[in-house]
Amino acid sequence: MGALKLNDKAIGLIAGKNFGYLATTNKDGSPHVTPVWVDREGDLIVVNSIVGRTKVRNAKRNPKVAIAITDASNQYNMVTYRGTVVAQTTKGAAEHIDKLYRKYIGKGKYTGDRRRIILKIRPEHYAEQWTT
Amino acid sequence: MGALKLNDKAIGLIAGKNFGYLATTNKDGSPHVTPVWVDREGDLIVVNSIVGRTKVRNAKRNPKVAIAITDASNQYNMVTYRGTVVAQTTKGAAEHIDKLYRKYIGKGKYTGDRRRIILKIRPEHYAEQWTT
Repeated sequence: MGALKLNDKAIGLIAGKNFGYLATTNKDGSPHVTPVWVDREGDLIVVNSIVGRTKVRNAKRNPKVAIAITDASNQYNMVTYRGTVVAQTTKGAAEHIDKLYRKYIGKGKYTGDRRRIILKIRPEHYAEQWTT
Repeated sequence: MGALKLNDKAIGLIAGKNFGYLATTNKDGSPHVTPVWVDREGDLIVVNSIVGRTKVRNAKRNPKVAIAITDASNQYNMVTYRGTVVAQTTKGAAEHIDKLYRKYIGKGKYTGDRRRIILKIRPEHYAEQWTT
């Protein structure tokens, strides 16, 4: 599938203190889902994790992922993308978690595990609607 | 994996107007994630969808799923389970969507698509912590 541009709704949701729910595929083929802080680099959705974390290993084995990004103040306002992790890099990843910390928590630095890694997700398929 | 009992935190989250983010596996092996209303039947997590919907077809093909259930008032308060869809049934599913409608929206009935189907998820692996 080709790359999509993020639409204004997605860009707005990513700009806010909103979570993504990132789905990856485990080694045994079962799905995995985990909440993530979200950022953006152009039309790539950017998340930050820790080297060796399940989602990181999963995305290395199978870069196909899906992510739902939801409005923290209204769960019905959300976007979902399927896409591909086109890059994983540790470069700048510690600084990037501090940036996310300031966005989501406030002043200061992230005090957790700093062996960070950035995952860049190229959106390829979009679903907007909340459907029960 | 064996079945788990839902813990008090999960039971509390399911009792509230909180969403689940359900991950399934697409035909091409890529993951799919979608928000769902959640209910419980003993230690099974119960969701309600529409016959033919992607998550329903996915769970029929591969019943392994994952679900994150998050506190609508505090996204950091959440549980995640991996598990298996052990039953899909249309029996009572239209009444069940009305029950969920009353829980999440209020009085009245669900006015959307009524070709409903219930998915029952047996939890088999638990993760509690929010981890960036």
